[in-house]
Order: sequence, then structure tokens, then C-alpha cells
Amino acid sequence: MAAPRPLPQPQRTTARNLKPVNIILFAPEEFSAAHAAYAHAADAHAHAALVLPRADARAAHILDVLRRQPGDTFDAGLIDGPRGKATLAAILPAAPNAPADGSLSLTFSWDKTEPPPLPPITLIIGLPRPQTARKILNEATSLGVSAMHFVTTERGEPSYAQSTLWTTGEYRRHLIAGAAQAFCTRIPRVTFGKPLDETIAAFNAPHRIALDNYESPNALGEHLQSVMRGAPLILALGPERGWTSTERARLRAANFAFAHLGARVLRTETAVTAALALALARMERM
Amino acid sequence: MAAPRPLPQPQRTTARNLKPVNIILFAPEEFSAAHAAYAHAADAHAHAALVLPRADARAAHILDVLRRQPGDTFDAGLIDGPRGKATLAAILPAAPNAPADGSLSLTFSWDKTEPPPLPPITLIIGLPRPQTARKILNEATSLGVSAMHFVTTERGEPSYAQSTLWTTGEYRRHLIAGAAQAFCTRIPRVTFGKPLDETIAAFNAPHRIALDNYESPNALGEHLQSVMRGAPLILALGPERGWTSTERARLRAANFAFAHLGARVLRTETAVTAALALALARMERM
Repeated sequence: MAAPRPLPQPQRTTARNLKPVNIILFAPEEFSAAHAAYAHAADAHAHAALVLPRADARAAHILDVLRRQPGDTFDAGLIDGPRGKATLAAILPAAPNAPADGSLSLTFSWDKTEPPPLPPITLIIGLPRPQTARKILNEATSLGVSAMHFVTTERGEPSYAQSTLWTTGEYRRHLIAGAAQAFCTRIPRVTFGKPLDETIAAFNAPHRIALDNYESPNALGEHLQSVMRGAPLILALGPERGWTSTERARLRAANFAFAHLGARVLRTETAVTAALALALARMERM
Repeated sequence: MAAPRPLPQPQRTTARNLKPVNIILFAPEEFSAAHAAYAHAADAHAHAALVLPRADARAAHILDVLRRQPGDTFDAGLIDGPRGKATLAAILPAAPNAPADGSLSLTFSWDKTEPPPLPPITLIIGLPRPQTARKILNEATSLGVSAMHFVTTERGEPSYAQSTLWTTGEYRRHLIAGAAQAFCTRIPRVTFGKPLDETIAAFNAPHRIALDNYESPNALGEHLQSVMRGAPLILALGPERGWTSTERARLRAANFAFAHLGARVLRTETAVTAALALALARMERM
């Protein structure tokens, strides 16, 4: 496999508790109505400038961590679109009809090509406690998956789906952070709170593997040897307390093979990262 | 590969922020002097009983999370020794000459056999920020490594070695938590703050790989195909800002091959887990 293209050195952070951000991502809908008038153009010119309130965490990052001054540039990306360079055109003071803290005027120059599609991996995960879900949302996105479905299961805790993580849309922040970490603009599709049965019925990827340390004859790494490189893969992980026998039967009926990750008991987030590493390496995407 | 032996279902926690603990570990030096008199015996009878102050976090876990009552048992382990069953023999009240909060009287019945040796993987990691080091200490221990060396490097932050994580011995707590998570008693050897050069000079494992996303021709997963199964392996990861050219030259001179983990930029802790997953799968230990 060829070496990956040279990557930007991760930015150093100077402030405590601020994580390094390798690229700052913007959503298409953040661009102003004035620019949206160009949105029918086939290129990214419609997303070439915006005004970012200073209260936005990205503004703080640009000024306080990256220490950019007017005229300076930084790596930017359009969510599910191209990467490029942003320029801090001006720091605008607070004014009538403008944000009270002032704002940043940014312009963008987007690359002609977009990042490659995400690896064709779909994760199905028994709804974990919210703090675990946050880690998985971030880490699986940074590793690269196309979709994540956090499903209800018989041994799961139904109240987890009512967490503010899901109800306020907070989960999307963790996806964006994971993509920014990976220097990528692409965000996986996410669903939460749907039943396992309904979710597995909706897919027809050729390769389907359920992780289960209790009833699996084969190690995941060994099983992946039989997976066609590049073919879509569904990986299902149970909730903390495991699958029930009913769920195992349903997974088998839906053509899931069972595989294990060894004799050591791993936390769900560790198991997700380990399983994705093995799958991505098999796909030559790691 | 045969299926791993059936594992205990992870314990549910009822209190917020209490992590599940699959086995509660005790250090040989915690056992009382009275019992230590038997320490010359060739078996584990020297470690068959102890009195645990109620102020100890494990006592709170046994009573408040596992909800054990006198006569009940739980999974226990002797650090770097056997697993077994502990019995909560009695809850002792506060008394003169006894801990003010009272204590638990515990007895132990140890398995005849000990867990297998840890996988023969040595990690060398450029000293990361303490919060990242905590995650790596815990996750790498739960995945299974023999040793971790957190080394100083040219682009590292020397002040990280002065963190209370290292100076107070707090790091050992994260090793024990990782082993307890994995239902294992074995703890990797750890050093911190020694220079990279000195550390790599001390080893002669046949397989040595340095991760480097900038100058590596081969993917780690591909490179591992040439590693003999079961042979000791050293994996080196740079600090957040990467290796310098001097360090790359020294690693090459010490027979390290370079390998990458794909085009996406991963956090150090994610890279450690991903690299260990690939190495452990190659060793048939995952």
C-alpha cells in the first residue's frame, strides 16, 4: 500500500482542556442567506464566506488556541464536502444588529476534490451508557465508519435513549469532533433508539458479523480473512450485559456470523476501536 | 482458534460514575503481617484473608455496587497471581484500634492455576499529556501488554513527566483498573521519563516497529504479516507532535521498521488501541 499523503502536524494547544483540532468544520447551513443565493451553482462558491459569532467555540479556538490574526489562514472543511483553507479576514467589533461579543469574518478557498467516501462499515451497537456513547461517536468517526446505529436490546437500559446526548442533538457534536480529529469532513449517519430487529432487517451488506465473547467459535481477525476486501461490512456489538439467546437467534437468522475479540473482557468503547482497526486493516483503509 | 472460556457477565453498576469492575484485585503487600508469616509456603495460602478498611474504594464497591452481604462471594484476584473467590466474612464496626469507618473481613479461595502470561508486546510511547496517558495506561493494560515505557522525546513536553499522575504513583491505579476490567491479575511493567535512546538500547526483541504516519511505506497490518506469531514485539509511538528526523534515524539504526495506520489522523490513545488490536490479532491473542 502506498504511504498516505503527508498530513498536517497536529496543532498544539496551549490552553488546558482544549483538545487539538486538526481541521475546523463548518456546516453548509451556517453560510448566510446572501451566499445561499449562489447555492444552485455546482461548485462550493456558495460556501465561500461567513460571519462567525465570537461566542462560537470555533472562534475561541481560532483566536486563543491557533492564535490567528487578520490575514492568517487555517485548515477548514465543509461538512460532507471539500477541505480547504479559511482566512480570518477581519475581527468585527460588537455593534447594533451584530453579536454582542463581536464576530469573525471568514473567507474560504475549497479544494477541487473532496475527501474519499467513508469506509463501508456499518456499526450496530446496543445503546450504551451516554458517557460510553460519547466516546464511541467520537472514536468510530475518527477511525472512519459510514453509519452507526445505537439500538435498543433486551438487556439494554431503555432510559439511555432519553439522555440529553440524544434528545438535544449533542451527539452530532461528537461526530464533528471525531471527523475534525481525523482531518476529514465526512460524518457518518447515526440513528438511536430503534429496536435491534428493525435495524438488522433494513440491511443487506454481504458481510455481517456480531461480536459475542460467549458463543463465538472464531476470532474476529481470523473471520475477517474470509471477507472480500472493499465489500460492505456490518459489525454488531451487544450492550454491556450482552445479547440474549433470542437476539442471538435473530442475528443468526439474519445471516450474522459470530466472532470474538479474545479472552480478555474489554469495555465497549475499546472493543469498538479494536474491531474497527481489524476491519479497516482488512479493507486496506488503515 | 478455540472459543475463549466462558466469562463472567460484567457487573452492573447502580451508582452514577462508578465503572463496572469485573474482578477486584488485591496486592500481596496488603495481606497482614500475621498471614505474611506463611509467605514462605509455596502456595497462595499466605494470602487467604485480610481486613479492608471501609474507606477503601473497593469496600464501597463491594457493599454499595455489588451489594454483597456477609457470607456472599465475589470475583477477586491477587495482583500478578491467581484469580479466585473472595467471601465477605463479616462487616466489622468501628472500634478502638480499628479504622474509624469500620472494615470488611474478607477470606479468599484462590484458583490452582494462574492467568496466562501477558502478550509479549512492549509499548514505547512519547510522553503524552497526563489525561491521554491515563487512558493509555488503562486501555493498553486491558488489551494486554507486558510493558509500557513513556519516554521523553525531542518534540515532547518535558513537564508531562512531573504530573502527579507519575509523581504520586497514581499511574498504578490505572493499571489495576485496566487489569480488573480485563478479568486479569497481571500488571504490565511501566517506566516513565527515561529518554527514547536509552529505552530502545535496552531491548532486543526480534520485531520492532515504529508508527509514523509521515514516512512509512507500509501499513501496520500489512507489516505485521511478516511478524512471527508469538515472537516478542516492540511497538513505538511518537509524541503528539511526532518524531524528529534525528529520532527517526536512531530508530532505524536500532532496527525499527516504520509503519502507518492509514491516512486519517488519530488521537494517540486511539492509535495505541488500534495498533494493539492488530498486533494481538496477529499473535492470536485477540
